[in-house]
Amino acid sequence: MSIGRDVSERKQPLPSNSDRLSSLLLEAIARTPGCTRSFLVDVSGQSRGTVSQRLDGMIDVGLVLEEIGTSTGGRPAGHLRLNNAAGVLLAADLGATHCSVAVTDLAASVLAARTYDLCIADGPHTILSGMDEVFRELLVEAGKSPSDVRAIGIGVPGPVEHSTGTVVRPPIMPGWDGYPVPAFFAQRYSAKTLVDNDVNLAALGEYWARAEGDSHVLFVKISTGIGCGIVSNGKLHRGEQGAAGDIGHIQVPGSEEAICSCGNTGCLEAVAGGDALARNLRELGVTEALTARDVRRLAADGNVYARREVREASTRIGKVLAAVVSFYNPTAIVIGGPFADLNDAFLAGIRSEIYQRVLPLATRTLRVESSRQHERAGILGAAVLALQFILSPQGAESLLKRPGIDSTRIGSES
Amino acid sequence: MSIGRDVSERKQPLPSNSDRLSSLLLEAIARTPGCTRSFLVDVSGQSRGTVSQRLDGMIDVGLVLEEIGTSTGGRPAGHLRLNNAAGVLLAADLGATHCSVAVTDLAASVLAARTYDLCIADGPHTILSGMDEVFRELLVEAGKSPSDVRAIGIGVPGPVEHSTGTVVRPPIMPGWDGYPVPAFFAQRYSAKTLVDNDVNLAALGEYWARAEGDSHVLFVKISTGIGCGIVSNGKLHRGEQGAAGDIGHIQVPGSEEAICSCGNTGCLEAVAGGDALARNLRELGVTEALTARDVRRLAADGNVYARREVREASTRIGKVLAAVVSFYNPTAIVIGGPFADLNDAFLAGIRSEIYQRVLPLATRTLRVESSRQHERAGILGAAVLALQFILSPQGAESLLKRPGIDSTRIGSES
Repeated sequence: MSIGRDVSERKQPLPSNSDRLSSLLLEAIARTPGCTRSFLVDVSGQSRGTVSQRLDGMIDVGLVLEEIGTSTGGRPAGHLRLNNAAGVLLAADLGATHCSVAVTDLAASVLAARTYDLCIADGPHTILSGMDEVFRELLVEAGKSPSDVRAIGIGVPGPVEHSTGTVVRPPIMPGWDGYPVPAFFAQRYSAKTLVDNDVNLAALGEYWARAEGDSHVLFVKISTGIGCGIVSNGKLHRGEQGAAGDIGHIQVPGSEEAICSCGNTGCLEAVAGGDALARNLRELGVTEALTARDVRRLAADGNVYARREVREASTRIGKVLAAVVSFYNPTAIVIGGPFADLNDAFLAGIRSEIYQRVLPLATRTLRVESSRQHERAGILGAAVLALQFILSPQGAESLLKRPGIDSTRIGSES
Repeated sequence: MSIGRDVSERKQPLPSNSDRLSSLLLEAIARTPGCTRSFLVDVSGQSRGTVSQRLDGMIDVGLVLEEIGTSTGGRPAGHLRLNNAAGVLLAADLGATHCSVAVTDLAASVLAARTYDLCIADGPHTILSGMDEVFRELLVEAGKSPSDVRAIGIGVPGPVEHSTGTVVRPPIMPGWDGYPVPAFFAQRYSAKTLVDNDVNLAALGEYWARAEGDSHVLFVKISTGIGCGIVSNGKLHRGEQGAAGDIGHIQVPGSEEAICSCGNTGCLEAVAGGDALARNLRELGVTEALTARDVRRLAADGNVYARREVREASTRIGKVLAAVVSFYNPTAIVIGGPFADLNDAFLAGIRSEIYQRVLPLATRTLRVESSRQHERAGILGAAVLALQFILSPQGAESLLKRPGIDSTRIGSES
């Protein structure tokens, strides 16, 4: 018996390029209030000398600040934090009819923000030019200039090839197919632009805003369509083609007849998406039900047909999520979209199916919850996407090399 | 609008402890024939000085060997490889009725191996004592001693709490519930023991044996039961409770009536597992169909009822895998178990459902294939599990500190 692998088949032996000491230290500093050198030595598993050498470089270029704490004796414990004055992030969450835009500091906290209306079908040049005008106004509002921008994160309501930031055959973004969003901003800022679809970014935002310990978080957006973002140990799982999370076209047991816009039958979207519920209501004579938000409003106002539609939808969503839980064993599922906080029955319907269908081990500590971030999740995720780039080896390196960063050094171990 | 996260909720800010330079270098060396220092500088993104300092330490303790290549000019290009003489791994793939055991070198290539029969119900002490006897015989056969063992990897046919190596409520391992397998070997070897379930390890083995570029690999074992192992970028995805991959209890659209041993209805195992197929055949009067292997044999021998059962099973498996592909967008799905290589119809049935149900983007480059490793996958995975521990920061550190490693240094840049 030979179990040796054929090494000649292997060309690129390495894990992703996120596995570097600098980004690990930067992420620890960004996410740990009162972070100390000793803490970084502990969590990095590196020697004090190695950690200090790396840190001193970051402090020298002004990326990290160290403030001498009030020590109770012995050597003073310097508290480390990102130097937010070292730059800002631009974040945008683009929807079909409106856009949320923000300037944040390097810890993804908002300095200035705005939401405005638009029509996505006006095409990329018009939309992005408008977005950039707002970016510049917000920069002025925050007392910053375009040269302070260190990275740009943008969410769009369609499929994106993440590596290039190109929009790919988006169903609701006419004129955007093949458009490379980063190229637009590359002419205007000397900073990297990262693009992803809105559901992925909402998942990243929900993960970032949650308590620590949630290793595997799913964000499920239930609106006109139904999609899912997957964050595992802080990283988005996009899948081989960036198509992961497409749960709207999973077939629902017991609903095999319904015809979906994709041409298949029994898809979750065809029996639980907002368009499907509105159509069902219109067939029952509720003529004002045109969109997912209409259905939500009717259900909230006590229309029993709307309530029944939403309740039945929750059961079907639960059936599909039960399959997902059996396969993936997530830590938490966050439900977003207009129905998420409609009433307890919606969440109860989803939970009920999951608990009934999945073996108990996988649901022992599972939490299924409504989004606590609501509309903010998308733009927070866009800022986090930009932040994660800065914290990556490539991003940290580009930042360290910038001539523009102040080299103010506040405090140090001496 | 505030999108700042509440940092006070976060206690442990860091990614897993696999993100360290030493393990990155060791993995690159282990997996790259003709690996050079320049290559390591490229792939690690670290300076030549940092890489060389780390490498010199590994060479000094005899973990890595550097051999001067025949250079065409300039400074000689030293070829780096793991020093297989620095120790061996023990690997075991334990089944209900037999066990495969191997001694491998530090690159998971077999030095000596054996497969023998057993009855898992004899309980952990008897089974593991027998396994250890074989380990010791194989060590002698390979010209090694117990002090050469650097890590032990063991697969078992049941759920395992991976962090402690404890078997948890295994349905087919009477007497093993709560048994901590590593404690048994801790008394016998000064090496870490890693334990995981057999399907996870087969997935890891299949991943390891495949060509590079397969980022997200699923291994689906179809036998008496049906389970799935998930390997993403070289790491097993175990989920929050280690329950990930439990696809045998996902409900199959169109098969909601069948009663499963878990008490639910319509589970994949209840309509496509080997026991279910055998039972269906007995109901049709094919009395000799008792197990999954009987069904396979009958189908291979041309029994049309058996062939029909297997074919219908493949369609049901395809329906569930279609849901999995929509959610996860894997690079490849490897099918294992007795039916995997029965005939082309089995794979075709699975593929057909996946291509019909999933949006085309996610199946554009998807490969659905029979296992090429067959029975070897499990024991290869067990060896890789042990190897990955050695390549982890914790494992590499324990290895570097061992007094027993030869400090032979063959060649160096000078």
